[in-house]
Amino acid sequence: MIENKKGLLIVVSGPSGVGKGTVCKCLEEGNDNLFISISATTRNPRNGEVDGKQYYFYDVEKFQNMIENNQLMEWACFCDNYYGTPKAPVEKMLLEGKDVILEIEPQGAMKIMEQCPDAVFVFLFPPSMEELRNRLCGRGTEAEDVVEKRLEIAKQELLMADKYNYYVVNDSVENSKSKIEAIITAEKANKERCKIIIK
Amino acid sequence: MIENKKGLLIVVSGPSGVGKGTVCKCLEEGNDNLFISISATTRNPRNGEVDGKQYYFYDVEKFQNMIENNQLMEWACFCDNYYGTPKAPVEKMLLEGKDVILEIEPQGAMKIMEQCPDAVFVFLFPPSMEELRNRLCGRGTEAEDVVEKRLEIAKQELLMADKYNYYVVNDSVENSKSKIEAIITAEKANKERCKIIIK
Repeated sequence: MIENKKGLLIVVSGPSGVGKGTVCKCLEEGNDNLFISISATTRNPRNGEVDGKQYYFYDVEKFQNMIENNQLMEWACFCDNYYGTPKAPVEKMLLEGKDVILEIEPQGAMKIMEQCPDAVFVFLFPPSMEELRNRLCGRGTEAEDVVEKRLEIAKQELLMADKYNYYVVNDSVENSKSKIEAIITAEKANKERCKIIIK
Repeated sequence: MIENKKGLLIVVSGPSGVGKGTVCKCLEEGNDNLFISISATTRNPRNGEVDGKQYYFYDVEKFQNMIENNQLMEWACFCDNYYGTPKAPVEKMLLEGKDVILEIEPQGAMKIMEQCPDAVFVFLFPPSMEELRNRLCGRGTEAEDVVEKRLEIAKQELLMADKYNYYVVNDSVENSKSKIEAIITAEKANKERCKIIIK
């Protein structure tokens, strides 16, 4: 009676330190039909990293070609290395009916919004700024001024939340996982994504 | 970080025979914060029916007063009796943060859409017209021509689905329940219903 074959593109974003990566991994592990999109980069593989697993490792020429041919959903340059999201593997999975998660910082997410208006945009919030500070400190032995700078950037990033569809407070990985799963289920029942076939 | 205190009004509709009542009861039983809205009627209570439980039982004068004073979310007249949804109890529960389910046929749902644009409208579909026919027949010993007439009305009602937010195929009560629960969770995370408080 209702047809909805195409997969869903879910963009999970939020400030640095909020726990995007952990939540996305947890979602992928618990769901056979959901895959985290793999980014491309021109930086060298680190020990144990495999092409097509952690990243697609491309040389600068190939990456620049992809930029020119509009084969990336978004890209950016950090520390002299390119990073980006190749379009083709994502589109292939969506056409096969697979759901794809894109874990990305807010600047990158803005670019995805322009290209994929029918993706679902989820913004992860920390329970509080204090807790975000704890998570940023807990990462390692960051100097106090580095943490302060990151918190400032996080506050700027929180202002971008306005453009997103859904807000999830990452108070626990399990809670965030089940909320995002509910969002996926609901979006698949969204009238705009469904075709009625009376038979 | 995110505040969302008001309850959600969920309108569950669909053609006669699709199983709205069973799905709504199952939802209410499984959730301490969710309540089915109670209709008002001018018909006489049947054996065992209690005022404020199955229905609010009003006399015609009181019901007509409520119509005049805009105290009903919708109302209709069937077989010389009035039926309607009193506004006050629904609004009270929503303000208390409770979620309210309104089980209603598609004509009534259209009136709710005008009055409560921020409610969530779920349309229940039968798995097929054949299955809807089975369910209509299974109800009792309806004559063939009565079933055919109901199926014709059902086809008209399916055309109204276009105005709803979500489509759920009622292939099993448990599936519909978990889908509507996901819709409620997702709608509460919907940016439009959330207020960001940075602290």
